[in-house]
Amino acid sequence: MKKIVVDLLGSDNPPALLLKGALEAAAETNDFITVLVGNSDEIEAAVKSSGIDRKKIEIADARDYIKNTEAPTAVLHGRENASLSVCYRILSEDPDAEALVSAGSTGAVLVGSIYKLGLIENVHRPALASAFPTDNGGQVCLLDCGANVDVKKGMLVELAHLGSAFCSALLGKERPSVSLLSVGTEDKKGTLFTKDAFEQLKNSRLNFVGNVEGYDILTGKTDVIVCDGYVGNVVIKLCEYMGKATALRAKQLLREHGFEGTDALMHDLYREYDYNNRGGAIMLGAKKVVIKAHGAATDETILCCYRMAAQLAKNDLVNRTAKIFSEFGA
Amino acid sequence: MKKIVVDLLGSDNPPALLLKGALEAAAETNDFITVLVGNSDEIEAAVKSSGIDRKKIEIADARDYIKNTEAPTAVLHGRENASLSVCYRILSEDPDAEALVSAGSTGAVLVGSIYKLGLIENVHRPALASAFPTDNGGQVCLLDCGANVDVKKGMLVELAHLGSAFCSALLGKERPSVSLLSVGTEDKKGTLFTKDAFEQLKNSRLNFVGNVEGYDILTGKTDVIVCDGYVGNVVIKLCEYMGKATALRAKQLLREHGFEGTDALMHDLYREYDYNNRGGAIMLGAKKVVIKAHGAATDETILCCYRMAAQLAKNDLVNRTAKIFSEFGA
Repeated sequence: MKKIVVDLLGSDNPPALLLKGALEAAAETNDFITVLVGNSDEIEAAVKSSGIDRKKIEIADARDYIKNTEAPTAVLHGRENASLSVCYRILSEDPDAEALVSAGSTGAVLVGSIYKLGLIENVHRPALASAFPTDNGGQVCLLDCGANVDVKKGMLVELAHLGSAFCSALLGKERPSVSLLSVGTEDKKGTLFTKDAFEQLKNSRLNFVGNVEGYDILTGKTDVIVCDGYVGNVVIKLCEYMGKATALRAKQLLREHGFEGTDALMHDLYREYDYNNRGGAIMLGAKKVVIKAHGAATDETILCCYRMAAQLAKNDLVNRTAKIFSEFGA
Repeated sequence: MKKIVVDLLGSDNPPALLLKGALEAAAETNDFITVLVGNSDEIEAAVKSSGIDRKKIEIADARDYIKNTEAPTAVLHGRENASLSVCYRILSEDPDAEALVSAGSTGAVLVGSIYKLGLIENVHRPALASAFPTDNGGQVCLLDCGANVDVKKGMLVELAHLGSAFCSALLGKERPSVSLLSVGTEDKKGTLFTKDAFEQLKNSRLNFVGNVEGYDILTGKTDVIVCDGYVGNVVIKLCEYMGKATALRAKQLLREHGFEGTDALMHDLYREYDYNNRGGAIMLGAKKVVIKAHGAATDETILCCYRMAAQLAKNDLVNRTAKIFSEFGA
């Protein structure tokens, strides 16, 4: 049976909380064995007391993790017993292991995905993508969210292909619409860099539908939005902050005006924008599914990330991507 | 007496609506004569019926305006009778005319500010800045908001000086704190471009306090945020959209759950994020105060923009800026 590997260390929260989420995820799936990486004694005890079918679980021992202050390359050498190193060893040695969920150091997750898993042929750089809820009830895939802050000519088109494959696998859309983030919706609007990308996207096999601007990101008018990792990173953080801040402001206003019983509802609204509780970002381009959960991941985060990993593994993200990129070779 | 020139044409809304806002503004100020540019017959009639002191008003006739589809350089030649051309003629000929408020073509406003007013010595390009309300009750000045989407090396430092002078004049802060928009708060985070700007800002005379990320833009932890016009444009549009969308979602949720009487409150919240109703963007770097109101400007927009223009003219934005930039000469 296929396996999903969950790194229980490296979050700001206690491993036991992440383990709780991973066990919930393991309990609800019948398609994957869950490989739990962390303190094996504690995991074994928790699995036993959870009553989950022991055959659905594998355990790999790790007592330490790679810190954010360490060089990301520590995942390649020198920290063989750190949890993320153990995860990548399993993923690289076990062909059944299809996906990773980790809240550990972003840099180390990235380095591991490149050098331990390897990139899909003709992919030059992994990308970091996020899926946001949109105001029409759907989702939009935004990339790059910060893995590539200095993008070179041609990279946005590669990002667009990665994003299109991701959107297909996540949302089941065969030909997702792809847009370019710009300063206006007109074809001629943009920077020298986006204008160049516009022409390349227009001439690609993608379902490219043109420019979108800041007003359009969360409307749901497009499936995939591509941009460089600098603006993408600003956008995801701003979206999260603003949604929460506005919900808090609504809660405060309602209180000030004596409306009672509305707190819980406004808290729900607040949580709608708490993207950390909805899932994680995905590293696209590697030969396995890699989900980077937020550093402040909770049990709920891990559950959401696991579901995303399962969805992407089932819908064959890696092979979809490989098929697209095979057309760029030779 | 000093004068503020208001262009009544070129908005998506009827000139009569903009005139209403301009007359309200004129009525409340005792520091400026208001120069109204538009259909002089209609203006004269409206002034008369408003009961406003006629000595507070000057009228210049214009029956047509430069459209967004026209070349912005039309403001320089070929469209001498268009309202914006008339405005710039007054501003360039009348030394008492200190400020312009226009909802017309952004490109034409920009071109006019460069070639009809001229740039302050040592300023290379005008910038577009916005002031946003922050969650701690203050305001933050963000620039560039779209006038400079392709920024060259060194331009962010120039933007920072323009923004610092703007913030001083608008908020009365002597040494506003200036931040650089990046992908993390650490000094080393950013693109090659922002890292270079970081070093220049650190070595400038500005009160530079380091990097901010997407989470920080609206917290009020900094007075001025500089970034290129591409990301700045995405940010202002996203902020406006998200605030409104979240407020609408709150309204909808409250309705669905049977809370009555909350609509008006949520509508107030919605309007808090309607930056168009709060004022306009300002073109910095020109030898007079130039406020670009939103293309969908209403009476309220014009009133807000007028107040901002008056504040900046009173607080001597242009001379403050000139003083700062004089240090960069020779």
